[in-house]
Parts: sequence; C-alpha cells; structure tokens
Amino acid sequence: MNAELIIIVLGLLSIATAIFYAGRVVRIQVGAEGGNVEQNNRLKEIAAAISEGAMAFLLREYRVILLFISFMTVLIFLLLDNPKTDFNEGIYTSIAFVSGALISCLSGFVGMSIATKGNVRTAQAAKTSLSKAFRVAYDSGAVMGFGLVGLAVLGLVGLFILFTVLNVDVPKHILMESLAGFGLGGSSVALFGRVGGGIYTKAADVGADLVGKVEKGIPEDDPRNPATIADNVGDNVGDIAGMGADLFGSAAEATCAALVIGATASALAGNNTALLYPLLILAIGIPASLITSFFARVKETGSVEFALKLQLWISTAIVAVALYFVTDFFMVDSFQIGEKTITKWNIFTAVSLGLFAGMLIGWVTEYYTSHAYKPVREVVESCETGAATNIIYGLALGYHSSVVPVVLLVIVIVISNLLAGMYGIALAAIGMISTIAIGLTIDAYGPVSDNAGGIAEMAELGKEVRDRTDNLDAAGNTTAAVGKGFAIGSAALTSLALFAAFITRTQLASKELGEGAVDLTTIELLDPWVFGGLLFGAMLPFIFSAMTMKSVGKAALDMVKEVRRQFKEIPGLMEGTAKPEYAKCVDISTSAALREMIPPGLLVLLSPIVVGYLFGVKSLAGLLAGALVSGVVLAISSANSGGAWDNAKKYIEKKAGGKGSDMHKAAVVGDTVGDPLKDTSGPAINILIKLMAITSLVFAEFFVLKGGVILQLFK
Amino acid sequence: MNAELIIIVLGLLSIATAIFYAGRVVRIQVGAEGGNVEQNNRLKEIAAAISEGAMAFLLREYRVILLFISFMTVLIFLLLDNPKTDFNEGIYTSIAFVSGALISCLSGFVGMSIATKGNVRTAQAAKTSLSKAFRVAYDSGAVMGFGLVGLAVLGLVGLFILFTVLNVDVPKHILMESLAGFGLGGSSVALFGRVGGGIYTKAADVGADLVGKVEKGIPEDDPRNPATIADNVGDNVGDIAGMGADLFGSAAEATCAALVIGATASALAGNNTALLYPLLILAIGIPASLITSFFARVKETGSVEFALKLQLWISTAIVAVALYFVTDFFMVDSFQIGEKTITKWNIFTAVSLGLFAGMLIGWVTEYYTSHAYKPVREVVESCETGAATNIIYGLALGYHSSVVPVVLLVIVIVISNLLAGMYGIALAAIGMISTIAIGLTIDAYGPVSDNAGGIAEMAELGKEVRDRTDNLDAAGNTTAAVGKGFAIGSAALTSLALFAAFITRTQLASKELGEGAVDLTTIELLDPWVFGGLLFGAMLPFIFSAMTMKSVGKAALDMVKEVRRQFKEIPGLMEGTAKPEYAKCVDISTSAALREMIPPGLLVLLSPIVVGYLFGVKSLAGLLAGALVSGVVLAISSANSGGAWDNAKKYIEKKAGGKGSDMHKAAVVGDTVGDPLKDTSGPAINILIKLMAITSLVFAEFFVLKGGVILQLFK
Repeated sequence: MNAELIIIVLGLLSIATAIFYAGRVVRIQVGAEGGNVEQNNRLKEIAAAISEGAMAFLLREYRVILLFISFMTVLIFLLLDNPKTDFNEGIYTSIAFVSGALISCLSGFVGMSIATKGNVRTAQAAKTSLSKAFRVAYDSGAVMGFGLVGLAVLGLVGLFILFTVLNVDVPKHILMESLAGFGLGGSSVALFGRVGGGIYTKAADVGADLVGKVEKGIPEDDPRNPATIADNVGDNVGDIAGMGADLFGSAAEATCAALVIGATASALAGNNTALLYPLLILAIGIPASLITSFFARVKETGSVEFALKLQLWISTAIVAVALYFVTDFFMVDSFQIGEKTITKWNIFTAVSLGLFAGMLIGWVTEYYTSHAYKPVREVVESCETGAATNIIYGLALGYHSSVVPVVLLVIVIVISNLLAGMYGIALAAIGMISTIAIGLTIDAYGPVSDNAGGIAEMAELGKEVRDRTDNLDAAGNTTAAVGKGFAIGSAALTSLALFAAFITRTQLASKELGEGAVDLTTIELLDPWVFGGLLFGAMLPFIFSAMTMKSVGKAALDMVKEVRRQFKEIPGLMEGTAKPEYAKCVDISTSAALREMIPPGLLVLLSPIVVGYLFGVKSLAGLLAGALVSGVVLAISSANSGGAWDNAKKYIEKKAGGKGSDMHKAAVVGDTVGDPLKDTSGPAINILIKLMAITSLVFAEFFVLKGGVILQLFK
Repeated sequence: MNAELIIIVLGLLSIATAIFYAGRVVRIQVGAEGGNVEQNNRLKEIAAAISEGAMAFLLREYRVILLFISFMTVLIFLLLDNPKTDFNEGIYTSIAFVSGALISCLSGFVGMSIATKGNVRTAQAAKTSLSKAFRVAYDSGAVMGFGLVGLAVLGLVGLFILFTVLNVDVPKHILMESLAGFGLGGSSVALFGRVGGGIYTKAADVGADLVGKVEKGIPEDDPRNPATIADNVGDNVGDIAGMGADLFGSAAEATCAALVIGATASALAGNNTALLYPLLILAIGIPASLITSFFARVKETGSVEFALKLQLWISTAIVAVALYFVTDFFMVDSFQIGEKTITKWNIFTAVSLGLFAGMLIGWVTEYYTSHAYKPVREVVESCETGAATNIIYGLALGYHSSVVPVVLLVIVIVISNLLAGMYGIALAAIGMISTIAIGLTIDAYGPVSDNAGGIAEMAELGKEVRDRTDNLDAAGNTTAAVGKGFAIGSAALTSLALFAAFITRTQLASKELGEGAVDLTTIELLDPWVFGGLLFGAMLPFIFSAMTMKSVGKAALDMVKEVRRQFKEIPGLMEGTAKPEYAKCVDISTSAALREMIPPGLLVLLSPIVVGYLFGVKSLAGLLAGALVSGVVLAISSANSGGAWDNAKKYIEKKAGGKGSDMHKAAVVGDTVGDPLKDTSGPAINILIKLMAITSLVFAEFFVLKGGVILQLFK
C-alpha cells in the first residue's frame, strides 16, 4: 500500500476532526441559557476584550516573525547555494522553511481563534453543568490538537512528494536535509511564540498578582484589577499559541531527523513506504486520538483529572497496538545503517520505548508537582517559616525532580541506540509524541478552562459556576505539568536525533569533499575544540533563562507601576464604580513581549551559525551536546519548581492557613517566582535545544564547506 | 640545582611564616587595653564559647571522617591490588591517600585554632585602631594560608621522594598515579568539610536570622538570640576549615594531574627536576606571598578593600616574574608528549594564562556581586516590588554572571591545550592557584573579621569598635566573592586536567593489556554510552545541590523551632535579664551537619566508582565531562546569586530604605535564599567535580581491568 496516500488521508481526517469540533464549539450561543441580560452582556464584552487583545498581539507578533522569516530565507538561500552540485539546496530548503514557518503561524492562529471562543462558551456551559463545560473546553482543545497534527503531517508529506518528484536523481539523504528546513521554520516560529508569549503572559500575571493580590488584597481575576484582561489574554498567547508552535516544532523536527538518518540506509532510501515510516507513526496517532476523544466525558460529580489522564492512557494503549501492525506492514524486515543490521522488531521496540518513557516522565512530573504527594507537601510545610525557606525547598525540589527523567532518557538513548543506532533515537522521539493530538488537546484544555474561570469571575457569575470552572482548571493544572514533562523529554530525544543527523550529514559531506576536508569520523570528547564547545554550550541555557526571566521581571515592573497608577489616579476604581483602563495594560505586555523576544531569539539562532562558521563542526558538536545536557536538566528543574510552588499555594489556600495567612503570603512569593520559570524560561529551553540542533543540521553543508575559519589559523 | 631540595626549603619557609604569624596573634592579650573588667570578661567568655563549639564540632566531624578514611583505604587497597605487576599500587596509593587526608585534617585544625583565637583579638585590637585590628585579622588568615601551602608542598614532595627511592624500576607515570591518592585524600576531607561546615554555618545563620531579625526585630549577633553563638561557630567551621580543605584539595589535585600527565613524557620522566616543575610553581608562590604580606597595611582612614585587593595584584605580579626564571632555569628546553613538541615557553605561557585568567574571573565576580555596579543595583531596585521580583532578578543575575568566566575558561582550555596539550591545562590550573597562600589568607581574613564583629556586638563594646569591625567585614565580603570565583575557575581547570590524566592513564593501561581490552583511543561524543554518561553527569551537580540545600533548609527549620521555643519559654530573655541556652543551638547545628553530610558525600564518591564498574571507562568519561560543564555553570551562578542578594541587602540597609523597610524585608528573603546557595551548595560543587575526577584517576587501572560489567552483556 502507498504510504503517502495513507498519510494524506489520515492528515485530512485530522483536519476534518478539527473542523467538526470547532463547529460544535462555535454553535454554542453565549447567553442562551441562564444568567440575566446584564451578566450575559458583560460575558460577551469581556470575551471580546480578551479575544481582541489576543488577536492584536498575535498579528503584531507575526509581523515581527515575518520579518525574521524573510531574513532567514535569504540567509538559507545564500549560505546553502553550493555551486558544485546540480541540486540547489538553498531553494528547496527555503521552500521547506517558509512552509514550516507559515503552517506554524497558521496553527497558532487557528488554535487561538478557537480558544478565545471556547473560553467564554465554557463559562456559559458551566452555568448548567460540569460535564457540559468540560466538553466545551475539551472540544476547544481538540481543535488545536487535531488541526495542528493534520497540518504538520500534510505539510511534511506534501513537501516530500514535491521534492522527490522534482529531483528523482538526487540522493534521498540530501533531499531530506532540505526537508529539515520545514522543522527549522516551525521551530523558529515556536521560539518567538514561546518566548514572546511567555513574556507576555507572565508579565501580566506577575504584575496583576503583585498589586492586586498582594498589595490590594483583591481576588484573582477581579474586574477591578486593570491587568486582569492582559492576564487572560496572556493565557491564550503564551499557553495556546506558544505551546502549539512548540509541539508542532517537535513533531516536525523529530520526523525530519528520522528521515535524514533513515535516508542514509539504502534499503530505506529506495523504498518510499519504508522511508516514510516515521511520518506514518505520527499519522497513525490521528485515528488513535480520534477514538480516544470519544471517551472524553465527566459525570457531574466525577473526577475531571481522572478523565483527562484516562485520555493519555487510552491513546497510548491504542497507539502501542497500532504500532505493531504498522511496523509489521510497512517496515522492511531488516536493513543496514552503516555496519548495523536493524530488524523491524528493533524498530518497533525503539518506538514503544519512547512511547512508554513519555508516560513515565509524565508520572514523575506529576509526583513532584501535585499536592497529593510528599514533595509539594514539604514545600507547603516550609512556608511555615516564610518565603525564604519556601524558595529554598522549591528550588531543591526542582533540581531533585530531574533525576528520574534523566535516568529514563539515558535508558531510552542507550537501548534505542543499541537496537537501531541513531535512527532508533529519532524513532523513540517520535514514539514519545505519537499521541500528540491528545496531548495537545489536554494542554490547550487547560488555559481555556483557566480563562473560563477568569471570565466567570469578571462577569460575576454565580458561585456554583465559579466552582465548576475552578474544578476544571485545577485538573488542567496537573495535566499541564504532565504535558511539560512530555514536551521536555521529547525535546531532548529530538535534539539528540537532530544532532546525530547533523553529524551523519557532515561526515558524509566531508567524505564527499575528500582530500583536504576536516576529518569528522570521530568527535573526540577530549579534543579542546570539542570540550570548549561543550562548556560554552552548557552555559547557553543559563544565559537564555537569565534573559527571559529578566525580561519578565522588567515587563512586570512596568505593569506594576501602571496598575498602581490606575488605582491611585482613577477615582472609584477600588469601589467598583469606575472602570480600569484594561487596554493600557494589554499594550504594556504586548510591546514588552515583542521587544524582549528579539535578543534571546537571536542568541539561539545565531550561536550555532557563528560558532560553526568560526570554529567548525567539532566545536559546534560540542556546543550542541553541552546545551542539550545542561538544558534538559535546567528545563525540568525550572518547570517542576514552578509547578510545585503553584500547587503548594493552592493547597495552602484550601487546606492549610488559607488566603491572607502568613503561610499564604510566603507561598505567593514562591508562586510568583515560579511563574517565569515554569511558563517562560523553562519551556523555552526545549525550543532552544531543538532549534540549535536543527539549525546546525540545515546548515551542515555550509559548515563543512566554509566553517572553521579561526580553526584554520591554528593549523 | 636539585628541585626536591628547593621545594623542601620553601615548604619549611612557609611553615615558619605561619608559626611566626601565629605567634604574633597569640601574644596579644585579650582585655589588655580599653574596656572595663565586665566587658573584657564577657569578651573572653564569648570567645571561649565560640572556640569550644567550633573545636567540639571539628573533633566530632573528624571522627566521622576517620571512619570514612578507613573505609576508603580498604577499598583502595582491595581494588587496586593488581596481581599481574610487581608494584603494589594499592599500598602506595593508600599511603598517599591517608597522608593527604590527615594533612588536610591538620590544616583545618590549625586554621580553626588560630581563627578562634584571632577573632576575639581582632575585636580587642579594634578598640584601639582600624589598622591594628586589620593586621590581627590578616595575620590570623596568614597562619592558615602559609601553613596549608607549606603542608601541601612538603607532603607532596615527601611522598614523591619516598615513592621514587623505593621503586626505582617502576615507570614514573604509574608512581604518579599512586601519588594522586594524596589529592584524593585531601579532597575527600574537603568534601565533608565543605558540606558539613556549609550545612552547619547556614543552618545556624538562616535559623538565627529568621527568628531574630525577621520575627523579633533584634539586630544580627544580638546576645539575646540563642542561635548567635552557633552562627559564629559556623563561620569558623564552614568558611575556615571547609574552605581551607577545599583549596588544599585544589592545590594537591592540580599538581597530581600535572605530574601524572608530565610523567608520560620520557624527557620529564627521566628528569626529576623538570618533572617536579608543577610543584615548583606552587613552591615559588610561597616567597612571593611572603613578600606580598609585608605590604598588608591599612591607614586609619584608608580603604580596607583596596589593601586586600592590592595583595592579590602584588602577589600575581611577583609570581608572574618569578615564573619566568623558574621556567627558564628548571624546565627542559623542549620535550614530546605524544606527537606534540612542547617548548619551555609554551609552558610558561600556559601557566601565565591560568594566573591572569584567575584575576579576570575574580574581577567579573566582583562586578556581579558588589553593590558598586549595575547588576546588584538592579537587584536592589527589584526589591521595590517585593521579594518575588528580588528572587527572579537575583537568579537571573547568577545565570548571567556565568558567561564571562565560562568564555575565559574556554579560551584558557583551548589555548593552553594548543600550547602544551593536556599538560598545559594542568599547568594553567596550577597557575591559577599559584598565589594560593595570599588567596587563602584573604579568604580566612573574612570570617575572622566577621566573627570579631559578632563578638564586639555580643560583648557590647562601643559603637566605634563595631564600626571598625564592620568596615573590616565589608571588605572581606567583597574579597570572599572574588575568592569564590578563583576557587571555581581553578576547580574547573583542575578537574579537566584530572579528567585528561584519567584518560591518558586508561589509554596506556588498555594498550598494556593489549588484545581483548576495550579500545579507549577515542572517547566518541556520539557513542550512546558516552552520551548517556554525559547526560547523567550533567544532572549530578543539580541533585547534589538539591540535597545540600534541603539539608540546610531542614536544619534551619529545627533551629527556628528551638530559637522560638527559647524566646517563649525562657522568661526575661527578650528583656536581656536571662541568658539563652546557646549550647542547644550549637548541638542542633552539629548533629544536623554530621547527619546530613553523609548522603551527598556518598553520592559524589560512589557515582564514579559504580558507573565505572558497571558501564566502563567511556560512560565514566561522559559522566565526568557532563558533571564538569554543568557543575561549573551552576557553581558560578549559585555563588554569584547569593553574593548579589547579600550585597543588595547591605546596600538597602545603608543607602535605600534602611532596615525594617518593605524593601529591606524583600532583600532579607533574597539574602536568606542566597545563604545556602553561596556558602553550601555552590562551593561544594567545586569539590564534587574535582573529587569525581580524581576518584576516577586513582581507580583508573581497576576500571580498565574490571570495569564495564554491564557493557559486556551487550557485546
């Protein structure tokens, strides 16, 4: 059977599913049931403000990104124009790059549109019942999940067909390297989306909390707080558009890495169906996720958290079974990569390893960030002696939480490599994100319910409505932590696979160049150029974190000043008789995010290009490895410290001390510190490590031909 | 000229200098000038309490360490007993190990004795003048500085003579590997000293601050605070004994690394004078430091900070000049290591590079941690919006501050390697700590003046006395930060050199084994066993930090409860009519430190042994590299975040807001979080990376012969 056709059909199925769910959400009439006219008008008004703010930001962000895309396209075109060969890598890579970038933008836009419609409709549905509200939030998330996977799969297979049809004579591994431009495009947009969105959302959040909760003692999402609309807009731009682009990037990049490495095996290069196996795994996740989504329901008194977790378990189980048949049916019985003989069952095991390791990492993440378990309870206790001990315990918890995920990753890396070389690692990465449609649905569900709660509060809907949205939101928080675990794990494997693809590619290229080229057959750890790169690379995630954290801090400072000003200068604001100027706060977040996302973005994109050009492939390999290993640990730590502080605060609000107590004040400090860690710098590190690896891969030939100018001086 | 003789003479000079300075300090009569009888009695009483507490802790700590030394000696003896050769490496390595450990204990003991005599005498001298008080504190530090360097140099040269005389026929590189046991011994003691001392001092400090300053609003070192004696004891056990052992370890290890690598060059192995060149550098630092110490003076209105910094500059300048002659006179004109030809001027340049890079790293550290510059001022501003933004800014500052030191280290690594291979890196490490006698003097000066201030406060000496000790203490804080920068930089280079020595050693050993042995000629970065080790290693500094930070948090919690209990249950304590039970607090810190230092200690010592045994040399090499690169960045960040928070608080106390203001409260939270980062986990990471590398080196032959049992299963 023809793999391309199957992938296209499943891709279209994914898009159709997304459209179906979108229709279900949009058809709900805001204000149809319950609530008085005034409440319903307020509901619409607030939703419109959030939607406008979010879309306005997105459009302005995309304008900046468009500039960047143009710049990168020119760069790719110029640097990859190798006059020695007939195949113009520059042109094809540019096409792939622009496609990836535009599809990523499109995904973000679609996700955002539906999320800003879904939030108010979830609030609306919460007037009647928990199960209805759950379904609306879930459906909104599913639009994002299925839409994005469908676009990714269709984009990749479309380019694959285009490239192979137009270049029948060009070796597949060279074509696949051009295809990797798609991943680069997707991930570049993701970087700006994550960083910009992350700065936006946390500047608003921290600013709103510091004045509203801490100084004025008014509740979260209180309509009197001028930053509250910006805060809700932030949930959409950071957690929906940013995260969507991030996972889109992971899917595209892991696939590209597997395709590049796979294409070096002649048995695969000559057999499109077997070559496209990595993409088939992603595609097979689509029907699996669709079946899973039928089970998404919650009884009125049921556990939302259980329902969401069940989604992950069901989809994992279905994919695991489907994988068996897909592998048996589409994969060649055995093939060679280098000197290694790889059977289809090696392949199957490697993918499954990734799939289940992802689940386990998710569990560990939950253990460290949910207040049902000991670690967060210890953080809660530490709040008894104040903010300082809370911070110390939370930081220690984050560092501690990296142990099991790292050990799991090491096991996956070693075993999948023994089974199928670097191809095995790339496949394990794809296995980990094969349930991405469900993963994204659940991830996007979170901010939608969070927003629904905010809207219910601002529109002053009844307490039972707010209770229902709180219930939805709480479950979303737990699954968000699990999702972050997944995202980091898959980013680590993806980067390693890309890294391997990069090395494979440069080794081939340097062999083709023959005499005079740098010998790249080994990347010796103790070579000073490699080790220097390693140490330098290990520092990059830290400086990147520093830049993004400080950006949040600076933007939050501006926000605090504006909010304080409004409380001081607008008479009647605190009493609720006058309206705050929401738009000013939205503006502050927007311009801060756009301004502050540039420097860290350039750092990530230019570091590999500059280092590769000046110091050559070996230093660059060191840099990638260093950034990868320190980045993984820092990303896990940042995400889990932040998650734990958040949940420790929630626990204190409900069970210990309560709001306004000294313990709660200490907990709020931790939560505020955790915000940029878990929602800005931590998740952005994922993209940092992936993006540096794929940049290196895309420019591999350039580095081999022209890189290492300083290195030459010492020869 | 005979190098051994020169080293012995200079080593004895160092000991004589230490004795001379010790005599000057001890001769000062407490209570001789100024103050009434009651004040003087209180002075003696408090000093006695601190001294008793410190000595009691040290003795109990050494009892635990003695157990550990016995265990390790047996392990070394058993694992290194290679029946195939005549030379019993186990016995010689054990001898070197025990010598190193005992000399390290002795250094700590001597330093501590004099520091607990120096503190009260500094307070006494501060009654008359700043310059007198400065000189007493400086002299106390010098006893530590010169004593320790003298012992290190004499110990190393003594063992060298013993080993070479008894084993004329054994190849030098094998003898030198046994000698490395000396470094292992020194560093093991350092680990427990640093971790135990660090937990002790910060549990007491955080506990004292949280109740005293924050809850009760009484000043630091107020005699009513029950934890205040423990706090002052802590300064001695953490900052004097712990840090002394740390730098003793660095000196011993860097020398051992250079000796092991140097001995693989036949031109050096056959020429003891040239072979001992690394030790000569350390020895030549002794007269250079002695001359420098003559310039240590401060006018009554002069700047203490300038005087201390001048010490570093003068000693660096003298050593640089002396190096030129030492290299010219003692080094062979050129020699081969592997295929590399190395001239004496390559050698000179590599050492100088280390020497000046150390200075630069110190400067950068100062820039990021002194409130005279922009970074700390930004942290100060961030306190306006509360504790959370202070923490965010401080963490970001720490991450940021790693950039320049990392780049400097990369430059030193690459250039010194180009000049003289891995031997060059080892020599650069020695260059960086060649002024160690002065460095240690200044480092030890800090806690002595800090203690002097505490004693002055507790004995209720006049305000002008306290002003003088505050002045001394403030300068000590700045130079302490500089010293930490040095310590981390030299630890990084030392570990890399040890790592290289380990690889050199295993390669030789596997060649000697011939057929059947694992091929170790390359450590390929992309080998999954190497990369797995790299990722695992990168996680180790984080888990180690987590363990030590949590230990401090736990112990501080106990301390807080005890101090609160005393304030509640002892009537008249707050009014100053009753005395607190100081001893109970000393006890809490002591037992917490001894209990909590074991797990992180075992983690560091056993990780390389277990990984090497189970997964072989390649995984272990990955582990060492991973721990090194992530450890360096984390150590620098932790130290500088902590230093910046401390100084931001000091600035607010003096210039902005003042004590008791909201800004100050926010700053105190940062300072408390920074305490374990800068004084427990951060500095202990130095030892972690060095100790894992030297453990690997010492057990190198064992790993080659018997390591990799799990690896074998996959063959």
